[in-house]
Amino acid sequence: VTGGASHVAVLAGGVGAARLLTGMVRAMPPEAVTAIVNVGDDIELHGLHISPDLDTVVYTVAEAIDPERGWGLRDETWQAMASLERYGGTTWFRLGDQDLATHLFRTQRMADGAPLSTATAEIAAAWKLALRVLPVTDDRLRTRVTIAPEPHSAANGSGPGGFSAPDEVSFQEYFVHRQHSVPVSAVRFECDVDARPAPGVLEAIMTAGVVVIAPSNPIVSIGPVLAVPGVRNAVRQRRESVVAVSPIVGGKALKGPADRMLRELGHEPSVVGVARLYAPLAGTLVIDEADRALAGDVEATGMHCVVTDTIMRDAEAAKALAHHVLHV
Amino acid sequence: VTGGASHVAVLAGGVGAARLLTGMVRAMPPEAVTAIVNVGDDIELHGLHISPDLDTVVYTVAEAIDPERGWGLRDETWQAMASLERYGGTTWFRLGDQDLATHLFRTQRMADGAPLSTATAEIAAAWKLALRVLPVTDDRLRTRVTIAPEPHSAANGSGPGGFSAPDEVSFQEYFVHRQHSVPVSAVRFECDVDARPAPGVLEAIMTAGVVVIAPSNPIVSIGPVLAVPGVRNAVRQRRESVVAVSPIVGGKALKGPADRMLRELGHEPSVVGVARLYAPLAGTLVIDEADRALAGDVEATGMHCVVTDTIMRDAEAAKALAHHVLHV
Repeated sequence: VTGGASHVAVLAGGVGAARLLTGMVRAMPPEAVTAIVNVGDDIELHGLHISPDLDTVVYTVAEAIDPERGWGLRDETWQAMASLERYGGTTWFRLGDQDLATHLFRTQRMADGAPLSTATAEIAAAWKLALRVLPVTDDRLRTRVTIAPEPHSAANGSGPGGFSAPDEVSFQEYFVHRQHSVPVSAVRFECDVDARPAPGVLEAIMTAGVVVIAPSNPIVSIGPVLAVPGVRNAVRQRRESVVAVSPIVGGKALKGPADRMLRELGHEPSVVGVARLYAPLAGTLVIDEADRALAGDVEATGMHCVVTDTIMRDAEAAKALAHHVLHV
Repeated sequence: VTGGASHVAVLAGGVGAARLLTGMVRAMPPEAVTAIVNVGDDIELHGLHISPDLDTVVYTVAEAIDPERGWGLRDETWQAMASLERYGGTTWFRLGDQDLATHLFRTQRMADGAPLSTATAEIAAAWKLALRVLPVTDDRLRTRVTIAPEPHSAANGSGPGGFSAPDEVSFQEYFVHRQHSVPVSAVRFECDVDARPAPGVLEAIMTAGVVVIAPSNPIVSIGPVLAVPGVRNAVRQRRESVVAVSPIVGGKALKGPADRMLRELGHEPSVVGVARLYAPLAGTLVIDEADRALAGDVEATGMHCVVTDTIMRDAEAAKALAHHVLHV
């Protein structure tokens, strides 16, 4: 697409995107990287505004993420959660003591009238990050997931046959509380019709040498980013410069429920299924060597297909993938 | 007043009241004790609802208070505050990691629609307290303090002589942030005209064998309790059964700025000044041996005066004082 972009905009979810961004800031000057991050996963809990994907991106690029858990901070302590448990409070969403400070700070700044993008920039600056981290919007955006009723709830169902209605829950209720172990029948994004992309989002997309769709869940990570009015259109206008990285490798999600969710929502859980979703938006799909045999099927959707090693074992592998994405 | 009350209602602020309550639950069955606690000190910070006096009462009676600081929990850790400092967040109001759980729980319960009194009862129950801890009101009540301009702000003053206007601040801004080291020219309670005492407050006052006014700051701890519509009247109706304990001993507050504040607001910083404030409400004032010489002046205000040791060095001393108060 280009011979090395001067600026890159990365549409980002959580873990997979954060790793690619770790590579991006090694493959080019960090200040030339703009992450446009999903906030459909955001949750208000205990009065705090929690932005899991923004935090995963910041903590990961700052090399402060806990490497085993893949979320939250390394060397974390859990005093507040232990005490909250004693009260019978809501503890399924684990908040470490140091991590809590991020939410306390963000919530206070927003109570003071700062938009989420400002609070995010301040948080990134405190972690001494040079890349730009933008929430896709400062307005409210929430991913709602319709899940099948739980088997044990059938007995309490209202219907004569003991069936209960499907349940629409918040993303975190599905992802963390139910541990994404329940089938999904629908996904919806709550977003005001007059919601706008955060300042800088459209400019970053329109002016980037390369627009990257990170290897995040296409439905619940990239989906909400594209659902903000104006974003999908901007990406589509840049189609020839848009490079998506498949989050599906060998028919499986590297992390999380993307494969199952694709299937449950009627898509093929493969790089071809991903290509069909992204073909209207992205000129190129980067797939893993494991899926080389499917390159032709990907190209049949109208996308260029690039095959490389997409498994980001470490920062060096992430840098190599980022370099590849920037030079397709 | 009585020969041992079957129930007692204690109008309470923070530390002094909490110590007396520690004695009360030793001097009589704890379930017969109702603490009616000031919430004028409450503060919203980081999105959390913080009720310092309620927490001091609960933590103290639960013997979980930090004995050196006099606030917060013993064996506390400070990870969240350390991390918040890194963000440049608001850290003058110190919140320990375990203490944070109390605020997280309270805020979530209130977001769920529970009144403050319900959240408080749940918190007290989690600490296995048998006494009843009631916020004086579930409605908004906030103490506002007018403080003299700071000397260094004179240069920024709007007047030609460099004087700046006095500054009205929240109670915690005055008490914690300015470390109650600035002169006070006025105190005001923000309370809706239709604010009501929390469920149980008026009943406790009207049916108690003894109503106790704890040795708390009369202006900023007891003042807000009496400012809730209906409370002052109820206490006045029980005047002959109301026993106040002077927070001033030998002309000094045992803790906090009560002596200075009394003087700054035109009251005498002595047991006589306290008697003049409480005479319309309380039949009896308990003063310390140190003030025995002023007993006649106290009685001249129309109150009975009881002289005893009021310094609550430990739980035994608090129990002895409580016993005395219950049997004046």
